[in-house]
Amino acid sequence: MNMITPKNLSGFMELAPKDQVLFERIKRKLEETYQMYGFYPIDTPVLERSEILLAKTGGDTEKQIYRFSKGDTDMAMRFDLTVPLAKYVAKNYSELTFPFKRYQIGKVYRGERAQQGRFREFYQADIDIVGDGELSVVNDAEVPAIMYQVFTGLGLSEFVIRLNNRKILNGLFELYGLGERTTEVMRIIDKLEKIGADNVKAELGELGVAAEAADALLDLLAFQGTNAQILEKLGALTGRNERFDLGVQELSEVLYYLERFGVPQEYFRADLTIARGLDYYTGTVYETTFLRHPEIGSICSGGRYDNLAGFYTKKKLPGVGMSIGLTRLFYILNEFEYLNRGLSAPADVLVIPMTDDMTSAVEISSQLRLSGIRAQIYFEKKKFKHKIGYADKLGIPYAIFLGEDELREHKVTLKKLFAGEDDADKQVTVTLDEAAALIRNGIAALGEGRCIEVK
Amino acid sequence: MNMITPKNLSGFMELAPKDQVLFERIKRKLEETYQMYGFYPIDTPVLERSEILLAKTGGDTEKQIYRFSKGDTDMAMRFDLTVPLAKYVAKNYSELTFPFKRYQIGKVYRGERAQQGRFREFYQADIDIVGDGELSVVNDAEVPAIMYQVFTGLGLSEFVIRLNNRKILNGLFELYGLGERTTEVMRIIDKLEKIGADNVKAELGELGVAAEAADALLDLLAFQGTNAQILEKLGALTGRNERFDLGVQELSEVLYYLERFGVPQEYFRADLTIARGLDYYTGTVYETTFLRHPEIGSICSGGRYDNLAGFYTKKKLPGVGMSIGLTRLFYILNEFEYLNRGLSAPADVLVIPMTDDMTSAVEISSQLRLSGIRAQIYFEKKKFKHKIGYADKLGIPYAIFLGEDELREHKVTLKKLFAGEDDADKQVTVTLDEAAALIRNGIAALGEGRCIEVK
Repeated sequence: MNMITPKNLSGFMELAPKDQVLFERIKRKLEETYQMYGFYPIDTPVLERSEILLAKTGGDTEKQIYRFSKGDTDMAMRFDLTVPLAKYVAKNYSELTFPFKRYQIGKVYRGERAQQGRFREFYQADIDIVGDGELSVVNDAEVPAIMYQVFTGLGLSEFVIRLNNRKILNGLFELYGLGERTTEVMRIIDKLEKIGADNVKAELGELGVAAEAADALLDLLAFQGTNAQILEKLGALTGRNERFDLGVQELSEVLYYLERFGVPQEYFRADLTIARGLDYYTGTVYETTFLRHPEIGSICSGGRYDNLAGFYTKKKLPGVGMSIGLTRLFYILNEFEYLNRGLSAPADVLVIPMTDDMTSAVEISSQLRLSGIRAQIYFEKKKFKHKIGYADKLGIPYAIFLGEDELREHKVTLKKLFAGEDDADKQVTVTLDEAAALIRNGIAALGEGRCIEVK
Repeated sequence: MNMITPKNLSGFMELAPKDQVLFERIKRKLEETYQMYGFYPIDTPVLERSEILLAKTGGDTEKQIYRFSKGDTDMAMRFDLTVPLAKYVAKNYSELTFPFKRYQIGKVYRGERAQQGRFREFYQADIDIVGDGELSVVNDAEVPAIMYQVFTGLGLSEFVIRLNNRKILNGLFELYGLGERTTEVMRIIDKLEKIGADNVKAELGELGVAAEAADALLDLLAFQGTNAQILEKLGALTGRNERFDLGVQELSEVLYYLERFGVPQEYFRADLTIARGLDYYTGTVYETTFLRHPEIGSICSGGRYDNLAGFYTKKKLPGVGMSIGLTRLFYILNEFEYLNRGLSAPADVLVIPMTDDMTSAVEISSQLRLSGIRAQIYFEKKKFKHKIGYADKLGIPYAIFLGEDELREHKVTLKKLFAGEDDADKQVTVTLDEAAALIRNGIAALGEGRCIEVK
């Protein structure tokens, strides 16, 4: 028989089993956190009618999309979770209760040019709150507060959520007579961090912005200070443009409530340079910087939009949301060796029968599971070295041996596989209940380490 | 602007939020159970090279598969999780440790003719144990024991796992000189339950099987009895064909260990008519019947195979596995109203501020979450009726009101929304700690109900 080489399509991540355990733990942490705030899970199809996904055409989307026909149906694979949300809400509008809070963690597809650390199939983890006609600005504080809980819950501490409000930027541009050129000006401002103030001024000049206006804009936008100092500086400019004033009011409220949600000041920062390229955002915008590695870009972004589903319904549906590019984040954490490898075992204990009869091994394992311990049994007839080597290779922290002696005495021999040479508890022969207690305590201590460990 | 009708492709399930909560609970139960037995999660791409997926061509697969080209790459969407597992194991052979135990819960795609209760995108939930060269038959007992735990853990009790061994059937056919026609005979036997013994005999006659041989076969295969009685009847035929004898030995061992794994006798039954159409299985085979609705067919099937990945590697990789068609099972449970609707709320409590300032609502909700309570806050400025109606519509069991009085007295008013008219606890004004304790107890009682309730 001719063999077919088992290889994957380029750009499609497939993790080794131990990595997958960690990925699932992270995904689970996200789900649990979103659920604590009353978010519904939703799960939309990977395939949709092309006309749905391409309602808002243009840009890279059309080039990158996986689109094909089957029979006479023109279909495509989703490239984000926002368009499917818009479709879902428009389609089910009359059955939904608003504000509609949902999370979705799912794979999306973009046929980008393949390169290291960029994927064509990748998970996004989105949360959004969608209102019917209106939506309180307090929601704009809740969304990043949830993301703060997610990241710190995972063990990531060195990050900052940067916030701005598009109304502040738009108002400012109007103040300086640049209202007509908002999009272009915004696109240039967005590059401030990358290319520096001088280059931004030069580009604004090319666009025809007067040097004075450019200076005034940059004086404000590039200002670095505490949240209170930035609000103060903004406050000095109020009373001249309604949009600007509203933006300042919203930003101020979001910053106030973020602290009430328990997010410490060092984790969020008003940053007037954040614009988010998309036209789509109309109020609060967010980016999240991993302080050890600002070069990787924002690890969690989003914002407030006025109208989620204008292509599918006449209902005005404002919302606010944030999204984590989970596959890319995992790839980066793995590359930088920030993952807690102590949590990658598929079981807490390997039960190793030393007799041909597996009866006791099976029964003892069932009892361990009843007390919450993940127990795997080694059924194969191999040499002892091979059996214990299996536990070692999988990184299973404990092994239980069941030999003739143990069975006769109704005991088990428990070995701590991660013990140091002079650890007194390294191997003990005890009752099953005692063994279960030792395992539970040991696992609890291991589990205190989070999925992410940035040393 | 022209509106695009927000509709889905036909055959693609998309659940209402409340249903999705239940679906996620069921999925979570599967994951948790698989993890208790030391199974690794794996996650393979939805898209693969067509040559990988179509290595074993023929039948309906090629007609049903979603296949297309992008650039010069011929790719397709996976139609099951077995072929991707074979590819994964062959591809990563040198990095894996065997036996390799894995579960995968993921969407697969089959462009079948659309009909009620059949889906083109659906979840499969598979577990497999793959050995390197050999694999103990005790694994054949562990796999259905895990499925027993899954179903009973979900609250499903009226089911039976039916077991057979292909070696018994093949040995029998050899005994009666039908060895050359095993596949055809098997296909006819497989119809026994559907068309009855007489029709099976007639079809066997058409195939040229002597009436005596057909009678002897059916006398054995159609025999209904306890597991012990069936083993006894099989035992009487041993000593004449090696394959048959091995099959009887294996079946006997699997039945023995199933009980040791804690599966009560009424939940598993030796049934010699189970053949499973696929050539692929070589030993133990399983089907699972939902006793209230045998007409829906097997809800969980699988078996033992000699060689998982023959198309991709020369290594001999025997394994055993079972698969649940999760989307279809969920659809059926929903149709028959067997889902526990008490578990479909997205939050345990809705915190309703009665003042403009949300500070206390935010802070109190954070404290509730710290004690494990899923707390949602109603931020919108609406009439009271609207706020409480929101909790009602979502089926949230508790509401907390925070008015001026409560804030002044450092108390909260807790309302039990599922209370009967004369329930003394219907509405109480208490401290936050007292409210948290009441909610926790109430939720624990609700949570005792399982996801599935067959009354």
